[in-house]
Parts: sequence; C-alpha cells; structure tokens
Amino acid sequence: MTDQETFLSDASALLGPRGFTRDPDLLEPWLTDWRGRFTGKALALCSPASTQETAELVKLCARHGVPIVPQGGNSGMSGGATPDGSGEAILLSLRRMDAIRDFDPAARQITCEAGLVLQNLHDAAQEHRLRFPLTLGGKGSATVGGLISTNAGGTQVLRHGTMRAQVLGLEAVMADGSVLDTLIPLKKDNRGFDLKQLLIGSEGTLGIVTAGTLALVPEIAERRVVWVGVTSLQQARKLLLHCEATAGDALEGFEVVPAHSLAAVLDHLPDARAPLAEPHAWNALIELVASPSEAAQLGALCEDLLASAMEEGLLEDAVIAASETQAEAFWQLRDSIAPAERAIGPAMQHDISVPVARMADFVEAASPQVEERFPGTRAIAFGHLGDGNVHFHVLAPSGATRGLWENSEGKAISAFVYDLVTEWGGSISAEHGIGQIKRDELGRLGDPSALALMRAIKHALDPRGLLNPGKLVPLAQDPAIP
Amino acid sequence: MTDQETFLSDASALLGPRGFTRDPDLLEPWLTDWRGRFTGKALALCSPASTQETAELVKLCARHGVPIVPQGGNSGMSGGATPDGSGEAILLSLRRMDAIRDFDPAARQITCEAGLVLQNLHDAAQEHRLRFPLTLGGKGSATVGGLISTNAGGTQVLRHGTMRAQVLGLEAVMADGSVLDTLIPLKKDNRGFDLKQLLIGSEGTLGIVTAGTLALVPEIAERRVVWVGVTSLQQARKLLLHCEATAGDALEGFEVVPAHSLAAVLDHLPDARAPLAEPHAWNALIELVASPSEAAQLGALCEDLLASAMEEGLLEDAVIAASETQAEAFWQLRDSIAPAERAIGPAMQHDISVPVARMADFVEAASPQVEERFPGTRAIAFGHLGDGNVHFHVLAPSGATRGLWENSEGKAISAFVYDLVTEWGGSISAEHGIGQIKRDELGRLGDPSALALMRAIKHALDPRGLLNPGKLVPLAQDPAIP
Repeated sequence: MTDQETFLSDASALLGPRGFTRDPDLLEPWLTDWRGRFTGKALALCSPASTQETAELVKLCARHGVPIVPQGGNSGMSGGATPDGSGEAILLSLRRMDAIRDFDPAARQITCEAGLVLQNLHDAAQEHRLRFPLTLGGKGSATVGGLISTNAGGTQVLRHGTMRAQVLGLEAVMADGSVLDTLIPLKKDNRGFDLKQLLIGSEGTLGIVTAGTLALVPEIAERRVVWVGVTSLQQARKLLLHCEATAGDALEGFEVVPAHSLAAVLDHLPDARAPLAEPHAWNALIELVASPSEAAQLGALCEDLLASAMEEGLLEDAVIAASETQAEAFWQLRDSIAPAERAIGPAMQHDISVPVARMADFVEAASPQVEERFPGTRAIAFGHLGDGNVHFHVLAPSGATRGLWENSEGKAISAFVYDLVTEWGGSISAEHGIGQIKRDELGRLGDPSALALMRAIKHALDPRGLLNPGKLVPLAQDPAIP
Repeated sequence: MTDQETFLSDASALLGPRGFTRDPDLLEPWLTDWRGRFTGKALALCSPASTQETAELVKLCARHGVPIVPQGGNSGMSGGATPDGSGEAILLSLRRMDAIRDFDPAARQITCEAGLVLQNLHDAAQEHRLRFPLTLGGKGSATVGGLISTNAGGTQVLRHGTMRAQVLGLEAVMADGSVLDTLIPLKKDNRGFDLKQLLIGSEGTLGIVTAGTLALVPEIAERRVVWVGVTSLQQARKLLLHCEATAGDALEGFEVVPAHSLAAVLDHLPDARAPLAEPHAWNALIELVASPSEAAQLGALCEDLLASAMEEGLLEDAVIAASETQAEAFWQLRDSIAPAERAIGPAMQHDISVPVARMADFVEAASPQVEERFPGTRAIAFGHLGDGNVHFHVLAPSGATRGLWENSEGKAISAFVYDLVTEWGGSISAEHGIGQIKRDELGRLGDPSALALMRAIKHALDPRGLLNPGKLVPLAQDPAIP
C-alpha cells in the first residue's frame, strides 16, 4: 500500500461507513462554496462522530502529512471551507457532531457541539424562554463550529457583539491531535493567555473547534420595529446616536438602506410595499426590544424616542410596525437587498468596516470616487451602521457580462475599494472573514507587524501547515519573516 | 566597555535623565511588590516617554540580550511586575506615558496610554457624564497598561465583564521592537487572529502594552445599595438568580460576606455599624444602577425585587441604603474584609473561581475539608458570588507566627485548596493573574494541552525569553514539549 492508501484505510476503519466516504456524488455538494466562487477536490469526506474520533483522525493526518479542511454548514462567504484543487486534503465535516451536551437555563449557558445548526440552537433556547442573540441569513445551515471559527456577525451585533462575545468556552482539536478543553463556564479565569480567543475567528487554521459553551440572553417579550426616512447617512448617524442615548440597551438593531436598494427590493419582491408614503434618500430600520421585566415600558419608550427625534430634526418620517407581520415585512425588505441587486446585474460586494463615527463620511466620499474611477458603475452601501460595518456593493455598468466582469473590472474595483478602506483606517473584512477570497488582499494591505505575528503563531501551532492550508494567513512576502 | 556598559550608555542616551536612572533610592520603591511578597533587583529603571522610545529601548534590549520587566502602578497581586534577584533585567516603567490621546464622548471611546492611572481615567470619563465600568481597590495607583496586561477584574464584572470586555483596541511593543497597533476602534474586524486578545492578560510576557482604546458606558444617574441577610450561601445564590431575572442589566454588583468577616470588619473599623439589627450567617451586598433614562424606575424596581424575594423566602432581612453616605458605608464594610482579617492574624488568600452554579456547593464542601485537614484554621469565603469568584481565605490557627506560618503550613494549605479547586473544574486564579506567585502551581495543575500551547506561543513571540522572564508561563517539565 502507498502511504496515502494506508491513511485512507486507517481513516475508513476509524470512522466507519457513516463517517468516511470517497463517493464523488456524496462529496460533490460540499466541494463548492455556497456563493459558487470556489470549487475544490478532496481525498475523502470525513465526518467523525465525536471529539475523540476527530482527535484520532487529526493524529492520523499528522502522521501521514494529510492536510485538513474543516467544514461546518458550508455557508461561509469567503471560501474558507472549500479545499483547493489538488485533492490532497480531506474535507473534515463536523456536521455529525450536533449534540447539545449541557444546558443550564438558570445560568443561561448551553454547551453544544460544532455541528449544531444555528436554527436548532435558536429553537433549543426558545424552549426555555431564552434566546441566542446572533442570527444571520444562513441560520438554517450555519453551524456553531463555523460561527465560532469565523467569529460570525449578523444583525444583532450592535447590542450583543459578534460570536466572540457569546463564546464562554470551547473545545478544539489542535494540529497534533491534542484536545484543548476550555468548555467549563468560568466567568473569571486569569490563568494566562486566553487561548480560546485565538481560535475564535481563526478559520480552522490553528485548530478545529469541536464544541462551544455559549451565553444565552432572556427571550424578547416585546419588540418595536420602526422604518424611518432620513435625508442622508449623516442624519442617520445622528439618529443612531440619539437612539443609543435614549434607548440604551433596548436598541437591538440599526440598519440603513439607501433609496436605490429599497427600490430594487420593491421591484424584486412582487408583494412588498414601501413602508413610507414618500421615498427618502436613506432609510433606517430600527429595532427596540425588551425582556419580560421591561416589556411594559417599551411602547412609550419607542414613541418618546421618535417624537424627540422628530423634534430635533433627526428624521423626515417614521412608521412603527403595527403587527409582528409588518415587523417581519420590514425586516424582509432589509434582508432582500442582496438578492434584489443580484437580480439586476453583476456586482462586487465588499464587507467592510471603518470607525463608526467615520462611516457616513466614508460612504459619502468613497461612492463618488468609485463611480468616477469606473464609469457606469454605481456604489451602494447598506447594512449595520451601528457597527460601522456596511456592505459596500459596486453594481456593474449596464450590459456587463456576469461571470466575466467580476474577474476583470470587478477585481480592479475591489482593490480600489480595499485601498480606500485601508486609507480610512478600516477593515477589508468586517464580518465575513478572509478565507481564500481576501487572503492575498490581506497580505497586500495588512499591517506588517500583525502579519508577522499571525505567521509566527500559525507556525508555532501548526508547524507543518496541515490545518486549512491556503486560508486566512497570507504567505510571507519575505521568507526571512517567520 | 563591556556589553552591559554599552547597553546602559545607549539606553541612558535614548531616554535622557528623566527616563533613565540607576539611583538605588529611586529604584527601591519599585523593586518590591505591594503585598511585600517579592523583592528583586534591576539593572536600571527605564521610563520611556513615548511608544517610539519604548520600541527603541526594546530593540536595544534585544540587541544586548537584556531582559525586561514591565511595570505599571506596581499594585499587582501576584508579583508579576517584580524582577528576579539577578539584577540582569531592566525595570520598564510605563508611568510617564499617561496621556489621553483621544476621547470621543459620542462614541463612548477613549484612547489612553498605558501609564494612565485608573482614578484619572474615572475622572476623565465623569467630566463627560460617562464612566469606565471597572474599579478596584488599587485605583489610585493601578494603570491602564497593568489592567490590560493582567485582565483585571473588580466588583463590577458581574454586569460589565473584566478588563478584556472594555478593551476595543491596543498598542503594544513586541519582543523585536516592532509595534502592533490595533488602537483604531473598529466594532467589527475579521481580519484573522484577534491579536489583542492574546496580549490582554499575558502579563507582559508576549509584548508590552503601551496604549489602549477603551469602551465607556453612560454615567450612573441613580443607584440603590442594599444589604441583605441570608441563611446560607445556597440562599444567596437563589437570591442572585432572582435578582438577575428581575433586575436584568440594572444589577451592577452582588457580593457575599459571611458573618465571621462582617464581625471582623466591625471589630476593625471603630466607627462602622452593622447594617442589620441581627447577625445572619451570610450577607449579600447588592447594587442596582440606572442610567439617566432609566433612573425614575429604579426605586420601584428595587422595592419590588426585595418584596418578591422576601415573599419567595430568599432572604431573612434587608435594608436599602438611605443615602449615598450609607451606600458608601455598606461598600466600605465589603472593602475592609481583607485588612480586617489581616489584623487578626496571618491568612492564606486564594483568588479562585468555579462555575457560578457550583460556587455555593464548593464553599460548603471545601471549607470543612480544609479546616479538618489543618486543625485550628478557619476557612472564609467572600466576594463576587455573581462571577463564581470568591476570595477563599484560610486563617491561621491562633498563635501562628506571621511570616513563618505562611511559608510552612500555609504553603501546604494553598496546594490543598488549589487541588480542590482543580477537582471542581475551577481556576486557581480568577482575577489576580499568575505572576510569580502561582506559576509553579499553574505548571503543576494546568491542563497539559493548554500549557503546551502557551509555551509554543511564548516561544514564537519571544524566542529569546526576554519579556518578563519567570512570570506566568511555567517552564516545560519535559524538554521535548515546546
């Protein structure tokens, strides 16, 4: 037997028929990322049933020098879970490990395995009148392990933070097959480096997250969803500050939608209606929430907030959703922007952040710069103003050919946008991560000191480079740099 | 000139007379930790005025192989800022770097240098009707850099988290003199490993924190401080859950004080009075706070909370402080436990945590075990029940000789307590860090996988071991382990 055959035979014996396959039909759905940007090959699809099996598999891989690409729900945005084209790596699916190991509703803590799907986590929390305060479009497929490994964001970051803020502890299999276990929910623990923080957001390049202990919050007893028309992003920013000062922790979300995006959504969704009578240059979608103990005051809080905002000239018009159905309809408008714009034509999408205080200035300055430099394009920014994170999309000139344009002018546009963001002190990846798609840009634009540290840490924890090779960590430009 | 003379001459030229001294009288106060446990020697006291100077100094040290012991206010609890006795290291004081570089009250963010004293940070925030939600006994000397490097805790962790939760960004000089700058306050940034998290709590062993961007919260407009008598720690735990469910985010602190400690404090402070008419086996000190927008409801919330707790049998008696003076007096009782017990006789102090849900069980089980194993001792637990973190003190048998007992029976007691805590899945350092005092115990009791990772990271970022040598990271037992 060749070395590879020995590995495959051992892996197959370790994982059994449910945990190991080389059947091309079974592999195929997992070899392309869900945005369809990357397709790779894999030696086998390995789906261990336990942390122990995962650790044994990683040891096998270490022994035979087999690279490992960990994968959760395969709904990442940056190709971080798609293997390269060499076919040398195994695809390590965590989806079979989806147990809830422990649930302490009084302490509001849940320990679950990496493969648990976000929607199922939401459901489990809800059964105990709790909630997991992170959600995103892919909640039906995204897994806890993937959410941790990518430090996922979403629409509730303003109030609750990203995934990092929800992770109380985690379990991970390291490159040598040893298991790091910090699952135990200690609120305070100062025994040295906080190793879990290093794994959160490391996209499987330092270790494979197999379980997490997560914080839950009380269920929402009452919410108010408000659609507001404003004159400019600057006004939206002032309204946001007003909401933060007035509503405090009740402010759960603050999203902005430009007129162009709302119009695109209304075209795209036949049954959708504009919330306000007149169009406005910008719209804000505001959600206020209250736990059971604060529910009684929420209505008054919301009305006072809007009245005082109106008085101070911070909005043009506003409507409070009259029912849960209408509230959902408002959110659907927001959540349909990306598909609505995809329907119009090709677009380059940039998930960027700048300091919250500078976001309005940035959008106002960058949009005309892009449109001028690339005639016929249109720059659209929408999303999480409260987090300083907008999705900055550049729509192709009419007539551009989908599939071709993205790889020609589109690439130049992205580089231009990332240059601008870097100039403004921002991040080229606010929430989607680096994966394959932004690795080289990170190498080009990243702070050299931070890049050197990342390379040193990667080398220290995965000296043979077997964990998710080619993702996140840009290769050193200068081989003298570690 | 010898190599050391060259280094000293270059360092002196770099830092100038204000930044460099070898005067024993000037060095002396900084060579002993404030608890008086450790005394060391230093080659020189270096006090750079800027990050640039710090970076140049670190490069000089790297060139000449001179170890560096960073120090803030020298009020740490674990000897982490005290050099060893060799006299080979420089003491690097960050105290001259105490500027506030940037303050954005609307965004509630402040960027300040490492040497800024916590009290001055509190004052700066207060001028803008904001507050920095972390405080501790040493606030008059503790510096921002030290608080970050030790991931400090305190009495407000229940609501706001430890220092880690307040740090939005930081600047640090790494072992090679390069500067890592993540000061820019991006709320969302997924460009790879979160390097700042690695520096927070690393006690100067991976890099020297020179500045931080910190989050502020709205000022407290109203507070209620309540002293409660309960029958047991179990009842206190139930009361805590009741407070969390009823008061939500208004719950700012929940400390527990046993009868013995309250009696000791009343003996120790001549003017202090017991808050309640009768003694109780345990006491809880509860603080509820409200920002300006919620201030009007706080009084009713507090009264409802106590009434329902009384109805459900969760307390024996309670009194709400009638004035700010009385509120301060309640807190003084809590803050005087350590000195009051030191006045009685020697004691071994253990800053430990276990999962919050198990804390009452732990104290009830461990106290008699310690007292039985070490006859004549008395085990006392007090502190942050809401964080699962109590200070577990073991008082010496009467007649024990201060200074001798700690190093004989005291050592055995600490090892026994740390064994118990580890058995219960807890931490031997909840908030005070490892420093010198617990390094060997961490090596003995730490998870081998976590220890191996810590050593690998330390070696990767500080290959020559010049940053705060001998602190935090236990040496490998087995030289084969990295």
